[in-house]
Amino acid sequence: MTTTPPASAADGAAVKAADRAHVFHSWSAQGLIDPLPVAGAEGSYFWDYDGNRYLDFSSQLVNTNIGHQHPKVVAAIQEQAAKLCTIAPGFAVDVRSEAARLIAERTPGDLDKIFFTNGGAEAVENAVRMARLHTGRAKVLSTYRSYHGATAAAINLTGDPRRWPSDTASAGVVHFWGPFLYRSPFHAENEQQECERALAHLEETLAFEGPQSIAAIILETVPGTAGIMVPPPGYLAGVREICDRYGIVFILDEVMAGFGRTGEWFAADHFGVTPDLLTFAKGVNSGYVPLGGVAISAEIAATFDKRPYPGGLTYSGHPLACASAVATINAMAEERIVENAAEIGAKVIGPALREIAERHPSVGEVRGLGVFWALDLVRNKETREPLVPYNASGAANAPMAEFAAACKRGGLWPFVNMNRTHVVPACTVTEAEAKEGLAALDEALTVADAHTDAA
Amino acid sequence: MTTTPPASAADGAAVKAADRAHVFHSWSAQGLIDPLPVAGAEGSYFWDYDGNRYLDFSSQLVNTNIGHQHPKVVAAIQEQAAKLCTIAPGFAVDVRSEAARLIAERTPGDLDKIFFTNGGAEAVENAVRMARLHTGRAKVLSTYRSYHGATAAAINLTGDPRRWPSDTASAGVVHFWGPFLYRSPFHAENEQQECERALAHLEETLAFEGPQSIAAIILETVPGTAGIMVPPPGYLAGVREICDRYGIVFILDEVMAGFGRTGEWFAADHFGVTPDLLTFAKGVNSGYVPLGGVAISAEIAATFDKRPYPGGLTYSGHPLACASAVATINAMAEERIVENAAEIGAKVIGPALREIAERHPSVGEVRGLGVFWALDLVRNKETREPLVPYNASGAANAPMAEFAAACKRGGLWPFVNMNRTHVVPACTVTEAEAKEGLAALDEALTVADAHTDAA
Ligand SMILES: Cc1ncc(COP(=O)(O)O)c(C=O)c1O
Ligand SMILES: Cc1ncc(COP(=O)(O)O)c(C=O)c1O
Repeated sequence: MTTTPPASAADGAAVKAADRAHVFHSWSAQGLIDPLPVAGAEGSYFWDYDGNRYLDFSSQLVNTNIGHQHPKVVAAIQEQAAKLCTIAPGFAVDVRSEAARLIAERTPGDLDKIFFTNGGAEAVENAVRMARLHTGRAKVLSTYRSYHGATAAAINLTGDPRRWPSDTASAGVVHFWGPFLYRSPFHAENEQQECERALAHLEETLAFEGPQSIAAIILETVPGTAGIMVPPPGYLAGVREICDRYGIVFILDEVMAGFGRTGEWFAADHFGVTPDLLTFAKGVNSGYVPLGGVAISAEIAATFDKRPYPGGLTYSGHPLACASAVATINAMAEERIVENAAEIGAKVIGPALREIAERHPSVGEVRGLGVFWALDLVRNKETREPLVPYNASGAANAPMAEFAAACKRGGLWPFVNMNRTHVVPACTVTEAEAKEGLAALDEALTVADAHTDAA
Repeated sequence: MTTTPPASAADGAAVKAADRAHVFHSWSAQGLIDPLPVAGAEGSYFWDYDGNRYLDFSSQLVNTNIGHQHPKVVAAIQEQAAKLCTIAPGFAVDVRSEAARLIAERTPGDLDKIFFTNGGAEAVENAVRMARLHTGRAKVLSTYRSYHGATAAAINLTGDPRRWPSDTASAGVVHFWGPFLYRSPFHAENEQQECERALAHLEETLAFEGPQSIAAIILETVPGTAGIMVPPPGYLAGVREICDRYGIVFILDEVMAGFGRTGEWFAADHFGVTPDLLTFAKGVNSGYVPLGGVAISAEIAATFDKRPYPGGLTYSGHPLACASAVATINAMAEERIVENAAEIGAKVIGPALREIAERHPSVGEVRGLGVFWALDLVRNKETREPLVPYNASGAANAPMAEFAAACKRGGLWPFVNMNRTHVVPACTVTEAEAKEGLAALDEALTVADAHTDAA
């Protein structure tokens, strides 16, 4: 265990000044942001230079599944750094082989070949390229409520407003609607109906797009940033069956849902479904070193047995990244971290959130599993009108901004997206930490309540 | 200094077996490759499990500018790992601020804001997005002889055969011809003529594409993988002037050419030209941790002052990557590594290669600067017919495959692309190492000579 490093407010001011002088931040208006200088982190917490410590209920960008600064992973990075930091993708390296083996051992079915990337977007890019070449078809279907990354193919697959500004090259991408009972696109009244209607909608979209022109359907197993909508029983199996019927490659994007987040190694494990390609990143090594990848079925791998696979990147299978994945996966197994995520979710977070939802007029729905939960905040529980409009900013987004500020004042770092807050702590979160965070959330929700029709 | 770790042939066989079982390699037919298991590396060398040591004249994928396992960079990674491995892009962090400052200090002109990515492709993706949003235009011009990365926008910008299989979404990308006197697309007879005709060709292409529809022109300052064609004097200044005239964003891709490779911090420094956006990766931290980025002009940064920049990635400004960049840049400055690259290039590599070219019938042209050199191999010095056809594989590529094998037998790891071999050692390469490698190259070229008309 390290201790909080000595940090002064003056150091923090200097860090922020240098940041504002030279760092260009993602997804932001550069003149309107005020980035918090972070001095250190450990386990479920991080802290600033002013003596404030935050319980990290966002796992940064839902990536620190093993918590901050896990000693075994830190040690593995240090050892590998001393041994071999980098080597080109064309060689064989012990840690790369071992990381691939450990991942392949855990992926469902025959997804036993691993192509490594630096992150999630590149994983999706390569999965789509594989699907297009394997099928000889161009079009790819994805859902409106999704996020698949920000490179130009991946961003066009994405189903949230981050797609709009980059949509010049969207040829070949078709968006459809996934199941989401609480805001049902199909006016369904229960899960079974939602499932049936969502599958019928997909079939109809396919019929009008031409199934023989579709290379792939890509879904987040449990959509993450878009709202943690756990699919109804039978939906993923239904999509699998449709893909088989038309020779379409089924891609499950588990960049956010994979590696323990849902209380299983992969979210697909909850549904007994094996995709043809599975993309991962984030939890594979908790982001300690940039890493992502694609797990590939035997059939698709065979397509590239005699014929070169035409894709790559300088740092595919980076040794330092792979070493951290090996240590992360081994630590998660030894310390039963996936099991902890399942238990805390089922016994602590789920029940507490349901109880919170009853007491707060702003909480329209609570949904999730493992350490992967969303609170859908509303103006009105009857009409389910979202607390803020889709993609609101500025004044229109004030209720959510005020809620987020209240969380931070209470020592809780929340994940906030549109009219939702997600409860996505580390998979290592303890019962005491979960309870501490849920209490702070409970308190902050009174700020959201004040913006409801009930107020 | 570390010593060669104990390694046995049996360990190497195990590493390779695990690799073949589970690792899917980039740009390869999985059933036809035989990846060399690497046991370790240091400075200009790496070694396998069978007692073979190789002088690395490829710098892996032209990224280990500081050599393998530089002790200061290794120490910095270890220290940062102990402190803070990862933090989301939204925060301010000391090492991220400092890396941005050190880079901004070295980039030409007012390119003082840094957007960080995991590698080169993502840097290009984001530069193109910035240019499109800044200009409100869609089309982007790039050259046929170029490589800009393998995500779907970047791959469509690419001008080598790696582009073809991914070209479904190429709307908005137009390829033109850059200057290359040895194989002049313009039938020029000298550098001045090549420069004038290349600029006229660009002007004409612009006129027919509609200059007011062009967001950006992207060039590698010195094209790398495509053949290290140093642009003639005046060309880049001419492109700059054209961009200014039409309000087109000028992007220089220095992913390969930047950070000392050409004997300057940036290749643009040789030509006194400042682009609007400059992309980097590889040499910024020698790839010890995946890192890339875009350096942004004041004017383009201002576009995103009140308006959000709609792009990002989970690991933008990754602390471990930034810490290794800080250590790399500081070590390069302290140890005069950029100056070493310039000197070794001018005094040792350049003269030796010119002398080699005279003696070998297979060497059509030698070109380059710093530690960034290409040998253009030919069947016939008169006709300049390439030793192997464009994008040859299998039997048609045998002369180059035999040449590469001869280099390896001689203890030299070469960079080979189509009919070229590149001499791209670490910027830290010593005179003795350069001479050792050049002697091995000289020897291996007799194998190429045997495939010429002179044989
Ligand atoms: C499901 C999913 N896919 C892909 C991505 C993109 O990953 P990255 O930001 O590493 O490119 C994300 C990022 O949040 C994601 O949640
Ligand atoms: C000039 C240039 N741009 C972009 C790239 C892509 O970089 P990466 O492989 O890190 O995505 C490369 C890679 O070789 C390159 O040489």
